[in-house]
Amino acid sequence: MASPPRSLSISFFVLLIIPIISARTSFIKLPGSDGSRSAATNTYCESWRLAAETNNVGTWDVIPSICVDSVSEYLNGDQYGSDYGVIADYALAFAKTVQISGDGKDVWIFDIDETLLTNIDYYKAHGYGSIPYDSNSYNEWVVQGTAPAFDASLRLYNALKKLGFTIVLLTGRDEDQRSVTEKNLRDAGYLDWERLLLRGREDQGKSATNYKSEQRSKLIVEGFKIHGNTGDQWSDLLGFAVAVRSFKVPNPMYYIP
Amino acid sequence: MASPPRSLSISFFVLLIIPIISARTSFIKLPGSDGSRSAATNTYCESWRLAAETNNVGTWDVIPSICVDSVSEYLNGDQYGSDYGVIADYALAFAKTVQISGDGKDVWIFDIDETLLTNIDYYKAHGYGSIPYDSNSYNEWVVQGTAPAFDASLRLYNALKKLGFTIVLLTGRDEDQRSVTEKNLRDAGYLDWERLLLRGREDQGKSATNYKSEQRSKLIVEGFKIHGNTGDQWSDLLGFAVAVRSFKVPNPMYYIP
Repeated sequence: MASPPRSLSISFFVLLIIPIISARTSFIKLPGSDGSRSAATNTYCESWRLAAETNNVGTWDVIPSICVDSVSEYLNGDQYGSDYGVIADYALAFAKTVQISGDGKDVWIFDIDETLLTNIDYYKAHGYGSIPYDSNSYNEWVVQGTAPAFDASLRLYNALKKLGFTIVLLTGRDEDQRSVTEKNLRDAGYLDWERLLLRGREDQGKSATNYKSEQRSKLIVEGFKIHGNTGDQWSDLLGFAVAVRSFKVPNPMYYIP
Repeated sequence: MASPPRSLSISFFVLLIIPIISARTSFIKLPGSDGSRSAATNTYCESWRLAAETNNVGTWDVIPSICVDSVSEYLNGDQYGSDYGVIADYALAFAKTVQISGDGKDVWIFDIDETLLTNIDYYKAHGYGSIPYDSNSYNEWVVQGTAPAFDASLRLYNALKKLGFTIVLLTGRDEDQRSVTEKNLRDAGYLDWERLLLRGREDQGKSATNYKSEQRSKLIVEGFKIHGNTGDQWSDLLGFAVAVRSFKVPNPMYYIP
């Protein structure tokens, strides 16, 4: 087959390349993992994250699909750790104002997942909350017992112990995950808690808000004073028998009612 | 006076301009209003704002001085309005699930300042919350009655009325600001509320949380059902007699206990 005349060939090449160049420099950009998301998508996703953190979204199942990249960027950048750090600082400032009685009854409660331990490695491999929760694969991850500590949470935990607080861990994990949870916590650096409260058989089917409120209520009946409570879910903090001060650490990946 | 030799003049010009260029391209940047704040300051201020919005800071008086520019940027950019818009969307989605009885007893409560009306023009002239609250200058601003509506709040307000909700306005403003408040609201586009509740003489000295809880409680005694409540302060939303769903709109400028 004969080649087309040279001038036609060049014109064809130019016609071919112009839309590629203009697509790359277009002001209207589609969401993507290369930082090319539109400003509007970024703004929306920041608003969504704030709405989720302030409990304005209500019950939600998965994160908005257009926000996967934005949430991933947040979790893998400096902001996520900084957010824990600033909250830990405010928690500690409050803790220092508490008059410790010395009878071991001054309690600080911590949730575990996304509060003391980070499961970011699991969520990284499962779409950062964009895929519906799968208990099988999640429990496989939990029994590995390799979740690391949040730096700021470990710092707060140790500072509270030094101040004389009694530490109670209150988690939605099941009783049959006690050993692996204890080992994971110790490996991550958390030592000498007073109690680790997990869901027993009688707690199955209860909302996290009810289950955790009931557990706090029992502590109060026992004579404990719950000064502080740190959790990544509003269901860790709200309900009844609430702490004097509650500290909500961020979690833009999942919601537990 | 004789001019310096031409070559000296050029050298002098070069010596003069080099530090200016290098200062402009330096990697270590001080906080400033020209977008040259350090990444660490930006990250800290974003964490502070999230901590304030999630009620982790506790009682606070003024915003951190290093965050004035960051807060100003947030308030004057697209994010602030977008945050109200996304929250209004979630509020409206919830409102549409409410079975309206038709007896006029289905209530939605709105706070006024920084919820229906924006006082951004006042705060712009008063350091965006970095200067302690001054009731004299603030009241001078209020009696001007020129605060505009938030677009998203006006949209939500009108949509709720269309759905059949009874609108109650519950504000920390004093009873003696009733007329100017009514006029300002109407001028901004808010019409046909059922009640405007302001602080009476008997409410002076009460915390906002108590005063507003008492007012909600009275509504419930009268047979109203409080389905939704929108406010920029946690003291608009928490306490007793709370709404079925509460919606916290942002306010990084001031805190009312």
